[in-house]
Amino acid sequence: MTTSWRDRPVGIVGLGLIGGSLGLDLRQQGLEVRALVHRPSTAERARERGLADRVDTDPAVLEPCGLIVLALPLDRLLDPPPELRAALPAGAVITDVGSVKAPVLERWRHWHGRFVASHPMAGTAEAGVEAGISGLFAGRPWVATPASDTDPDALEQVRQLAELVGAHWLCCGAQQHDRAVALISHMPVLVSAALLEAAAGEADGGTAELARQLASSGFADTSRIGGGNPALGTLMARSNREAVLAALGQYRRQLEGLEQLVQQEHWGELEGRLSRCQQRRPEFLQGAGAAPPPGRPAADGRR
Amino acid sequence: MTTSWRDRPVGIVGLGLIGGSLGLDLRQQGLEVRALVHRPSTAERARERGLADRVDTDPAVLEPCGLIVLALPLDRLLDPPPELRAALPAGAVITDVGSVKAPVLERWRHWHGRFVASHPMAGTAEAGVEAGISGLFAGRPWVATPASDTDPDALEQVRQLAELVGAHWLCCGAQQHDRAVALISHMPVLVSAALLEAAAGEADGGTAELARQLASSGFADTSRIGGGNPALGTLMARSNREAVLAALGQYRRQLEGLEQLVQQEHWGELEGRLSRCQQRRPEFLQGAGAAPPPGRPAADGRR
Repeated sequence: MTTSWRDRPVGIVGLGLIGGSLGLDLRQQGLEVRALVHRPSTAERARERGLADRVDTDPAVLEPCGLIVLALPLDRLLDPPPELRAALPAGAVITDVGSVKAPVLERWRHWHGRFVASHPMAGTAEAGVEAGISGLFAGRPWVATPASDTDPDALEQVRQLAELVGAHWLCCGAQQHDRAVALISHMPVLVSAALLEAAAGEADGGTAELARQLASSGFADTSRIGGGNPALGTLMARSNREAVLAALGQYRRQLEGLEQLVQQEHWGELEGRLSRCQQRRPEFLQGAGAAPPPGRPAADGRR
Repeated sequence: MTTSWRDRPVGIVGLGLIGGSLGLDLRQQGLEVRALVHRPSTAERARERGLADRVDTDPAVLEPCGLIVLALPLDRLLDPPPELRAALPAGAVITDVGSVKAPVLERWRHWHGRFVASHPMAGTAEAGVEAGISGLFAGRPWVATPASDTDPDALEQVRQLAELVGAHWLCCGAQQHDRAVALISHMPVLVSAALLEAAAGEADGGTAELARQLASSGFADTSRIGGGNPALGTLMARSNREAVLAALGQYRRQLEGLEQLVQQEHWGELEGRLSRCQQRRPEFLQGAGAAPPPGRPAADGRR
């Protein structure tokens, strides 16, 4: 039994990258999209870009919606303005797009009876009202983390929404989600940042300068996420602290193991572990949409 | 005082990615290129590809050359066949392309009076006789690491060769070179490999499987060099062991510092360090030739 949520407007709170992209895709599917944004200037630009059919700064815009997506940054999602919570119809299905799920679920399951915690794993480097693009979710995972008390009908509606925009639907526990994203997204930010710090912080200034001159695409790739948005990296570590610390612990043990092999000159064993890494990596790239083409320059001079 | 090295054939030993690319570029500049390769089948294919004017498996092919580039893998460069050493004319300038310089220089300065240790920092993911491409060195660093007894005229000839193929010439000490490449290339391989091991080795199999499904372009980038050629990664760690261990030590200290900030919930300080990383990263990308375009998908669902 699923209600005909498609016959009513879909609400989106926030028209940044995720919210704006979702608005474009849903409108293209013939749905009516109503959006709530914070600033009048954002509302105006969102209207110009056609991100939603109606864009307003008044929460009343959400009143007729049957399904509402809270496309807010994680910190605002965890601490929403009271007027937003008050404006969410009790009968509507509410979902979010936050990249950490346990703390979101813990709060929102008490705040709204038809809340479904979810996380579309899609993005670009862009943010803000100009960032939204069509087709952002196509082929990307959209993970829901239902709790024991999550309304199954609400869950089904969010699934339909995700699949309508071409996403690949997955369900798992909130803590399992948070451990997984700590491993593949939040912890790697710190791993990558430490690399920049180590290379830039070389005590001998001449070597640091030389390192800057010689850095190649290998270093560029490995350091990319460590050189990303510092507020986001901090917010992820903060919101997913326990899982990030656990992932860092796992990471440190692996790195120390590799370091020991170099220290003890166990070259056969080192090559064996690097071989397993080479074999394993493709398993992680199926959904990544960013596997480097075979001919992509490595440009690090290694032969 | 520089001899007219351009009036005599240039020799290349090995026609893999670097040797083959160099052959193509030098021929395009009107120079006669003579190449020595190991296998007759390689010689035949190299001739078909036009990588050199003459390709032979007999070291005598090098006899008339005024400048010879040893484009050999590092392990063969460190332990060359005696017949190769015997075939190098005493009057010719000899250079190499190895990515670790101190051990190469240490051996070859005693083996040949006009040896110049050098390292063109260029590459692609390809290897072998099919890998060579035109223009590989254009705009890339080509580092020489002269010793106190390096012949200045030989050094000047190698500089002219490097600049002839469009490379950006740099000189530094061999140990400084090795420390810098440990920081930006050899150590990061282990940093990246440990990330794959941590994500794949998650004790809870369900979380490991989920991590594989959710891994995005951020993880793909950070893990790329860790999933690269295991024999090369091992060879670099082995040939540059001391500098790699020093770089790993520096790295570990930075990572432990970041971990402590998360542990102690010093979020302001964490954001400050990530901000410095964001500022520093562009300094490392000027020569990389692989800075991601601004709109490149991050696809990690972070907002």
